[in-house]
Amino acid sequence: MGKISFSLILALAVVTVGTTSEKKCVLSGMWKNELHSLMEIHDVNDEGEFSGEYLTSVTATSNCIRRSPLKGAQHDVERRAQPTFGFTVNWEPFSNSTTIFVGQCFLDEKGKEILETVWLLREQVDSPGEDWKATRVGTNIFTRKRNAMRGKILQDHSPPCEAPAPTALGTRPPAPRLPSPPRL
Amino acid sequence: MGKISFSLILALAVVTVGTTSEKKCVLSGMWKNELHSLMEIHDVNDEGEFSGEYLTSVTATSNCIRRSPLKGAQHDVERRAQPTFGFTVNWEPFSNSTTIFVGQCFLDEKGKEILETVWLLREQVDSPGEDWKATRVGTNIFTRKRNAMRGKILQDHSPPCEAPAPTALGTRPPAPRLPSPPRL
Amino acid sequence: MGKISFSLILALAVVTVGTTSEKKCVLSGMWKNELHSLMEIHDVNDEGEFSGEYLTSVTATSNCIRRSPLKGAQHDVERRAQPTFGFTVNWEPFSNSTTIFVGQCFLDEKGKEILETVWLLREQVDSPGEDWKATRVGTNIFTRKRNAMRGKILQDHSPPCEAPAPTALGTRPPAPRLPSPPRL
Amino acid sequence: MGKISFSLILALAVVTVGTTSEKKCVLSGMWKNELHSLMEIHDVNDEGEFSGEYLTSVTATSNCIRRSPLKGAQHDVERRAQPTFGFTVNWEPFSNSTTIFVGQCFLDEKGKEILETVWLLREQVDSPGEDWKATRVGTNIFTRKRNAMRGKILQDHSPPCEAPAPTALGTRPPAPRLPSPPRL
Repeated sequence: MGKISFSLILALAVVTVGTTSEKKCVLSGMWKNELHSLMEIHDVNDEGEFSGEYLTSVTATSNCIRRSPLKGAQHDVERRAQPTFGFTVNWEPFSNSTTIFVGQCFLDEKGKEILETVWLLREQVDSPGEDWKATRVGTNIFTRKRNAMRGKILQDHSPPCEAPAPTALGTRPPAPRLPSPPRL
Repeated sequence: MGKISFSLILALAVVTVGTTSEKKCVLSGMWKNELHSLMEIHDVNDEGEFSGEYLTSVTATSNCIRRSPLKGAQHDVERRAQPTFGFTVNWEPFSNSTTIFVGQCFLDEKGKEILETVWLLREQVDSPGEDWKATRVGTNIFTRKRNAMRGKILQDHSPPCEAPAPTALGTRPPAPRLPSPPRL
Repeated sequence: MGKISFSLILALAVVTVGTTSEKKCVLSGMWKNELHSLMEIHDVNDEGEFSGEYLTSVTATSNCIRRSPLKGAQHDVERRAQPTFGFTVNWEPFSNSTTIFVGQCFLDEKGKEILETVWLLREQVDSPGEDWKATRVGTNIFTRKRNAMRGKILQDHSPPCEAPAPTALGTRPPAPRLPSPPRL
Repeated sequence: MGKISFSLILALAVVTVGTTSEKKCVLSGMWKNELHSLMEIHDVNDEGEFSGEYLTSVTATSNCIRRSPLKGAQHDVERRAQPTFGFTVNWEPFSNSTTIFVGQCFLDEKGKEILETVWLLREQVDSPGEDWKATRVGTNIFTRKRNAMRGKILQDHSPPCEAPAPTALGTRPPAPRLPSPPRL
């Protein structure tokens, strides 16, 4: 009996260790940011590469949310619990712009995941002489969207977009409503 | 005679259009920046996606140049001559950091290509409380490396890296020598 | 009677003008950010120039909060209600670094003021060859600190700093705990 | 003996010159950047504070160069040869925007001074909901403008500006031609 209980304890210990070490910050799944933009990241492969979709509302006046493909990579989650990552969002065809995000996936004390990111939004300009004004910068925080059925929610949040995308900033290509600090 | 001259004009117009539309800024190939870092971008697929390799010298004291995979996307070059693009460089395994570049491919008057980029370098930190200090920013200009045989040059420029990668900035993970403005 | 109604109209007009012109976003006063850093901005002069003090906790382990001088300028608040502004914080003598903030002072629907800022933190490096890694970027949101007696609170929040400032990031000069997105 | 003492004096002189690592990077004076923008920085006071003027050409089509006041601070040059600095440029009255620069003053091997800077350009937007798109980022390198008579050159380079400043980017306030990487 002494042996059995000892084995049991051992087994429990192993399970506990397993559970603990399993608590990694995984990018896959649905995320939302402060501006209610949505992002779905598909499975991350062995090289840390992933693809997904970014859903952004173009302007406050448009209810049309558009899906754009994203591609990126995160560091090996086997070797660290809170990996850094980066990805590119290509706004084709409704914008000439490109956005990149870089960040880190954190676990807070309760195991809740949070993505702290900084982004650059690059507009297309006509010539190198206008290059200086082409890049915007900002930050964005994502939290996991609960109760989200994979693949399903993206369609639910993508109303038909018959109307042409309104431009937000004069001659600028349709401005993806990207990132923004939380407010008010 | 009326017909002939009309055909001639038409033919000339076609040739002109052809020549004009051919001169696009294509990302594929070998590029170098102001710090003599090298980058090879493979073929861009129909969705504008590409992969490649980034060769950066880690520190001034190390002669060991390391290859890191890059993944990204550019806008459809069929629809514009000077597309914007973005890509992620994953410094695994010799660093916890991730770098993203965003930029535009320009053609100058002589048809010479130039990549104007802005980048963010994200370090791994221990907790959200240290997140504020994790992101660096800078710019980088790439020009095409002439006389570069694809695939070949990357190996030539990658000496064996037996020694452990020296860290450049205290506790920071090995600092990729990324980008830097031209100088002196 | 004609006189009376005319006076009434005049009085209403004055009230309206008064109400309108009064609700401006003024920088002067005490502000706090998400990380509980404090900032006091003195009176803004006619050219929009101002000075003040920034109180930042250097590291999480140090309770010593340090006051650093700040200098900047905002746009003419007579001509616009929500002006942009910028200022420089000089961390001398406890750091070689310099931080700059740029932002805009907003009024929400209830008239509450909020400062949305982006900052750059510049470290001192040894040579131009290390310049590429010298600049960090991030965002910061300030709200007005209520019930703050001018000049008084800064002293209350500045405990004596006998101990040398601990460095936060390896060889880096003492890292001012600057800005950070709100979290958790 | 005469010879010996002479040699001694010579040796001392050499030592003094050597110690005259007094060669410090001083901000005061005239500077130009890659885009031929000009900047004059007045005397730096004991606290490291300085003021000056920034001359920028608004757009490529306008020959009218405008002077804007700048205010900032650099670190104590007595304690270090290559100090960091920061300053704010207020584009009032011809723009609602504010620009901040942060950088370091370097001395190369020949003692030539170079200012490596990163900047943020903040536009005025209408509400916090538009804050995310308000900030641009870029880099700029300044070198000392030789043969510049103080105060004189600023006037010479400031042609009369009768015409209203053209806007560079749609609804954006007149875009100061700020910073830009060297090119072509």
